[in-house]
Amino acid sequence: MTIDKKNKPSKALPLGFVDRQEKELLIRDVIISNIKEVMIKYGFRYLETPSFEYTDSIGKFLPDKDRPDEGVFSFKDENKWLSLRYDLTAPLARYVAKNYLEIPKPFKRFQLGTVWRNEKPGPGRFREFLQFDADFVGTKSLQSDAELCILISEILEKCGLSKKEYIIKISSRKITEELFKKIKIDNNEQKLITLRALDKIDRFGWDGVKQLLGEGRKDKSGDFTKGANLSLKNIDIIEKELKKKSPETEDLKEILKIFKDYNFNNFEFDPSIIRGLEYYTGPIFEVNLKFDVKNDKGKTIQFGSIGGGGRYDNLVSNFGNYEAPATGISIGLDRLVYALMQKKEFEIKQLKPVVICVFNKNSMKDYIRLLKILRDANISTEIYPGDIKLKKQMEYANKINAPAVILYGENEIKTGKPLLRNLSTGKEQSISIKEIVNEIKKII
Amino acid sequence: MTIDKKNKPSKALPLGFVDRQEKELLIRDVIISNIKEVMIKYGFRYLETPSFEYTDSIGKFLPDKDRPDEGVFSFKDENKWLSLRYDLTAPLARYVAKNYLEIPKPFKRFQLGTVWRNEKPGPGRFREFLQFDADFVGTKSLQSDAELCILISEILEKCGLSKKEYIIKISSRKITEELFKKIKIDNNEQKLITLRALDKIDRFGWDGVKQLLGEGRKDKSGDFTKGANLSLKNIDIIEKELKKKSPETEDLKEILKIFKDYNFNNFEFDPSIIRGLEYYTGPIFEVNLKFDVKNDKGKTIQFGSIGGGGRYDNLVSNFGNYEAPATGISIGLDRLVYALMQKKEFEIKQLKPVVICVFNKNSMKDYIRLLKILRDANISTEIYPGDIKLKKQMEYANKINAPAVILYGENEIKTGKPLLRNLSTGKEQSISIKEIVNEIKKII
Repeated sequence: MTIDKKNKPSKALPLGFVDRQEKELLIRDVIISNIKEVMIKYGFRYLETPSFEYTDSIGKFLPDKDRPDEGVFSFKDENKWLSLRYDLTAPLARYVAKNYLEIPKPFKRFQLGTVWRNEKPGPGRFREFLQFDADFVGTKSLQSDAELCILISEILEKCGLSKKEYIIKISSRKITEELFKKIKIDNNEQKLITLRALDKIDRFGWDGVKQLLGEGRKDKSGDFTKGANLSLKNIDIIEKELKKKSPETEDLKEILKIFKDYNFNNFEFDPSIIRGLEYYTGPIFEVNLKFDVKNDKGKTIQFGSIGGGGRYDNLVSNFGNYEAPATGISIGLDRLVYALMQKKEFEIKQLKPVVICVFNKNSMKDYIRLLKILRDANISTEIYPGDIKLKKQMEYANKINAPAVILYGENEIKTGKPLLRNLSTGKEQSISIKEIVNEIKKII
Repeated sequence: MTIDKKNKPSKALPLGFVDRQEKELLIRDVIISNIKEVMIKYGFRYLETPSFEYTDSIGKFLPDKDRPDEGVFSFKDENKWLSLRYDLTAPLARYVAKNYLEIPKPFKRFQLGTVWRNEKPGPGRFREFLQFDADFVGTKSLQSDAELCILISEILEKCGLSKKEYIIKISSRKITEELFKKIKIDNNEQKLITLRALDKIDRFGWDGVKQLLGEGRKDKSGDFTKGANLSLKNIDIIEKELKKKSPETEDLKEILKIFKDYNFNNFEFDPSIIRGLEYYTGPIFEVNLKFDVKNDKGKTIQFGSIGGGGRYDNLVSNFGNYEAPATGISIGLDRLVYALMQKKEFEIKQLKPVVICVFNKNSMKDYIRLLKILRDANISTEIYPGDIKLKKQMEYANKINAPAVILYGENEIKTGKPLLRNLSTGKEQSISIKEIVNEIKKII
């Protein structure tokens, strides 16, 4: 193949995408394994839908977007548009509509999968996320909504968090629906603008949100966001309602009772949580981490939500054939991993290989014999991949954080006693092959 | 939300994409866990590159395609094109070129990930695959190539396959390179057409391939594929060379010696294996399953290759800065899972929940108490999600293959003795709460 030096391919990654390293991946694996254990214990079925769906199957429900396919990666495929999923809920609704006659009802499923958002790239803005979702489809029972909060708590505690380190915030879309009636908003677009404004209490505080509920808000850069044009009186009614300390809607009262039966109390009622998605119809919840997390610059930040969910009773019926009231929860695993990586309790042992150095390619047979003995004893081991100078091989072993190297030169092969050098102490021992497994197990 | 009945969203999946069910996913999890164990034992580092890359970073190396981005899902992103990866090797080359100064050299990494091919959709043609890749980058040592064959064998045997059930076929790109010299092909395009023709021996047999090496081949549908236009004499030379029974190139002789040192003999030399990818420069290998596999129509088929790989010494240097000779192997996990699902030895126990039936919502507290006792004993359990007629609840329990249901009506709650009904025998027992965990463990 010829190299065209003028047209060298790009070595960079597109903005919003990252390479993930071993430490992060190992912690993620532990979390995923905890999730799967809890999911089986709770009786959820494991499902995987594909990355692509027809755009029209999932396009209508994209959160916070005006155009159907804004924010989504889409392709024209023969005559129809395909999109990469932007969440796992819309594909679930499609799955249920497609397989309604075959699946058990209610249908409890969990899924782990990547989702994509074609956001405007910017620093710290990712366009690819790993999500975990659990949903009950085909039941109005609020015991299901309650159990979603319980199961996510069990998962977090299995991952080592104490009750002080996380909280489930709950509210209900019924509260805002009743508010809309009270202040006489019946126009869908105005409802949506109002909900989006309220969803920003965390970011802008009540002062900023009140601007968004009124005429609009100008940010620091001078960009203006159009407001919901509510009257001051109505904005006041909304603020009072969303600052209440205990729930008055029937759905939340029932959920609180169920929580009590579960002896679950790691939640708080917070009517100011909104969750962006248009499709919620009942209880909504949000999972928040409360321990200190540092950002990439080492600054301690309010980490906030790692996910949430709620009841969406109309999503499946949008496909036009079946009614299937549903409730679900989504967790952003990358964010959860990011936070857990900072906890001392969550240090994972990264097993690095013992390196057998190569003195002479002709001794490969002896190296391989030793390699097999160690690997058979389940010790991570490798023969140095090459045959350069010993010094370079030692540099390699240090670079990969090998716990030890084995020096097995011609003399050592003759006496059957390789040298084992512990790379953290620098100590070197001559050990018979018979004893080498035990000696290495002391080191690693 | 209003439902527009005329514009109901599609319930279908785009061609080439599938929903995957629990049984398949559980088997896949076991395989993945075996892969990870072997990878750690062999000293490979766990890495994950993102789904998207700049098209120019990976576009040039797409197998078997004439246009750079043919067969790839691509998007215009501001000024540059992004593509979904079509394999895990091209992103690895980009990763190494990007991080060359920081990574250990040689660099051994493994990755599990989805890859996408924007093929023309058709029955049984998938456009999304899960792959496992292991690579050595930065070494010319053939011990690395040999070890890739050894490690994939260890993975397959860990997955329960006997030596009779799989074989590693090996060859070398050096054989065809020498052939090209002998018959005086030095034009890159003609080399490529020749390799692509030879890659089809499995499908068309030698007769079909000889047409492709000559003037061309017309298939059953009448479609004509242009040939390499070689002379009959040269086609004869190629056929003779590729039917040889033992290797004559230096690289394969050395690998055979290393296999012997590993006491590994589950391979065969097969110069007719080509592997489509243009970028191979040395030894190539292919992993084949040999046990009976049935297709979707129940017909026993020659299942053939589940993956392969080879040495590619120039891929990283295409980025224009560093030399990094490399060798790697890729396994198509969906195909491996498909085959393993058909082996009796590979039946995985799908833990289904015991269902606590709901007689009266007011007894929820008692149901929850029982639920917690069972879940704390790690028994998969659920309260029926809803409160419909008992008959419907029993239908549900049967539908999800629950091992048992618990009937805990008002009388049973009074006496503290729920009824446990074994759903495979139909037997019903009245059991104290104290003993219920042990009784259920006998059933599941």
